[in-house]
Amino acid sequence: MQNIKIATCNSEIKYHDRDDLLFISFDNEADIAAIFTQSSVRAAPVKWCQNIIKHQKIKALLVNAGNANCYTGNNGKNDISKKIDKISKILNCNKEHIYICSTGVIGEKLQIDKIINKIDHLNNIKDFNDNSFTDSAKSIMTTDTIPKYLFDRANIDDNIINIHAIAKGSGMIAPNMATLLSFIFCDANIEPQILSKLLKDAADLSFNSITIDSDQSTNDSLFLISTKTANNKIINNIDDPRLDDFKSKLNKICLDLAKLIVLDGEGVKKIIEINVNKAPNKKLAKKIAFSIGNSPLVKSAIAANDPNWGRIIAAIGKSYDKINQDIIDLDIGNHIIISKGELSNDYQESIIHNYLKNEYVTINVTLNIGNDNATIYSSDLNEEYVTINKDYRS
Amino acid sequence: MQNIKIATCNSEIKYHDRDDLLFISFDNEADIAAIFTQSSVRAAPVKWCQNIIKHQKIKALLVNAGNANCYTGNNGKNDISKKIDKISKILNCNKEHIYICSTGVIGEKLQIDKIINKIDHLNNIKDFNDNSFTDSAKSIMTTDTIPKYLFDRANIDDNIINIHAIAKGSGMIAPNMATLLSFIFCDANIEPQILSKLLKDAADLSFNSITIDSDQSTNDSLFLISTKTANNKIINNIDDPRLDDFKSKLNKICLDLAKLIVLDGEGVKKIIEINVNKAPNKKLAKKIAFSIGNSPLVKSAIAANDPNWGRIIAAIGKSYDKINQDIIDLDIGNHIIISKGELSNDYQESIIHNYLKNEYVTINVTLNIGNDNATIYSSDLNEEYVTINKDYRS
Repeated sequence: MQNIKIATCNSEIKYHDRDDLLFISFDNEADIAAIFTQSSVRAAPVKWCQNIIKHQKIKALLVNAGNANCYTGNNGKNDISKKIDKISKILNCNKEHIYICSTGVIGEKLQIDKIINKIDHLNNIKDFNDNSFTDSAKSIMTTDTIPKYLFDRANIDDNIINIHAIAKGSGMIAPNMATLLSFIFCDANIEPQILSKLLKDAADLSFNSITIDSDQSTNDSLFLISTKTANNKIINNIDDPRLDDFKSKLNKICLDLAKLIVLDGEGVKKIIEINVNKAPNKKLAKKIAFSIGNSPLVKSAIAANDPNWGRIIAAIGKSYDKINQDIIDLDIGNHIIISKGELSNDYQESIIHNYLKNEYVTINVTLNIGNDNATIYSSDLNEEYVTINKDYRS
Repeated sequence: MQNIKIATCNSEIKYHDRDDLLFISFDNEADIAAIFTQSSVRAAPVKWCQNIIKHQKIKALLVNAGNANCYTGNNGKNDISKKIDKISKILNCNKEHIYICSTGVIGEKLQIDKIINKIDHLNNIKDFNDNSFTDSAKSIMTTDTIPKYLFDRANIDDNIINIHAIAKGSGMIAPNMATLLSFIFCDANIEPQILSKLLKDAADLSFNSITIDSDQSTNDSLFLISTKTANNKIINNIDDPRLDDFKSKLNKICLDLAKLIVLDGEGVKKIIEINVNKAPNKKLAKKIAFSIGNSPLVKSAIAANDPNWGRIIAAIGKSYDKINQDIIDLDIGNHIIISKGELSNDYQESIIHNYLKNEYVTINVTLNIGNDNATIYSSDLNEEYVTINKDYRS
């Protein structure tokens, strides 16, 4: 990819055997669109990025793993200033084109000097090669067990558009920006406000449709950056048919990345796809899907391959809405469990038990009270989730 | 206690080594007030009881453990009719004064004949003695590890009022009627509509303020029954000062029972009391308290005695409301962690780590944006919770 340079190194602030600092710069400023956490407690770097995103330009990005720089008061703000001052001096650029992200433990003061001392080194070694994105994906991991990097190509006006996407996140994963951090790079010439709309649509179907533990991060940030080095004529209309292939590839890469995050969830062995159909509106469909996807009783039953479908029904019920329990259909995989509120005559527990041994399990709920649908992705719940989160800081 | 007869036996529908059927009848009809689950999926017995509660009279109560008779379609309704027909014949009473409760697995057809066949036997052996309430508490257990029975005395007009309360519930425990089943018996002469108000107030501070796993049952039912055999002059005004002692004892017995349920939660080792203070209104205070109390990350950190207070802050944030993160105070026990949004200079991780080894842990959050408070009770989260719920049906 042109117009992009990447470097990673170890900062010694938490991890001692791997890179945990990522520095990316653009020879010419790139365009950027972003989505941030909806939490009312937001980390210092998120606040910084939210303030500058209106300019839609990015010259550099600095990311550290191991410390979230969240709830660190004035220290946190000052640490952002120090990073920005240092980078703007080196690159001789506008401070408001420099993005900062952090991920890790909340509430601990950043060892800022260790990071500042590495910035010159990062700037000196920055480069672009075949390993740049996989190295990037590795450097932003916390409790992730695999680096998450996906690549695809789209076509705009017979020009090849490259899409590279990295992400991290395996706990504190819930509706609304369940990524923790994800950065998507492309080279298409697309107006930044169109990039922003494309990103929002893609996130709604992917990063905002996954849950592992119903907890939500203070640091969630999703960026879509374009280096604008492709040869397509600039696109400034979201409905331009030339965008169709790019849209579909962007949606797919976000969804695949979101599923990777679920599958790498703490202690996760399976993905559960939950479809709620024929709801009065999309919002309610998604709410009920998340009520099922966030139920520890459903998740632990599925971990045990136990067709305890009563827990799914209870999870639908606790979403409180005016559903009619007597006309619900429930399928697990292609197997009919409930038809119009009654247990199917074809139901055989042993068949569902066997089906649930799959690593990808589908639950289909049809409410029969409307025409809107939603799909979300959750995980099973195993003892390891608790073990990992009891041990996280030790 | 007078005017009450109790019997328990084994039904053979699920458990084979313990009583799982409870039959209670009143020589003269007693008064009853009740609160039910707010789930939109409700079991057949809950629907029956909700239909008859308007009469405010109870002649008999039949409870089974092991099968919830929920989502059992027309079979479920027919099984209720069979029980009601049988009991009304034996006792020669109005069908609408007969209450039925069930607790256990959702979605499995009840083996109704086994229950019907036991009703004559239960009616023949019914009695009242020192063990009646403890036997009752034992017979309604499912995954509970201890029977839950509490007793207290109140005073109305120099008359002693007896209060006996039993409950079951250790999973699927969440806001809004987190009891699964609880029955409170007293002998005071109080108008049924006043009983109903007293019960609602007591439940708001107790059974509706606890959470173990954020799941909610389809069968939750809480009854307050008075045999009216005390000698006090009837009370028909909620503000009557003669009620003060009874109110306070009723509130206390409900709260103590609710805490017992939390402590007996699946895999639970600790109670976490969460106080949210100085909120703009009670509803928001309770919402934030439950956001903390339902966070698996907070609960697993506390299981490990880990002072990872950042997770508490994140849980406050994910409740989305317009809190001001820069003026929050956070104490754990009597130890100041955060003061006006900044980490306290007195904070010492080792002290909090030691404090968290207690079996009863207190978290105090002061938002400083209003004058309303709320208290809820949660539990730590251990691997055993997952193990129990993976194994529940097997």
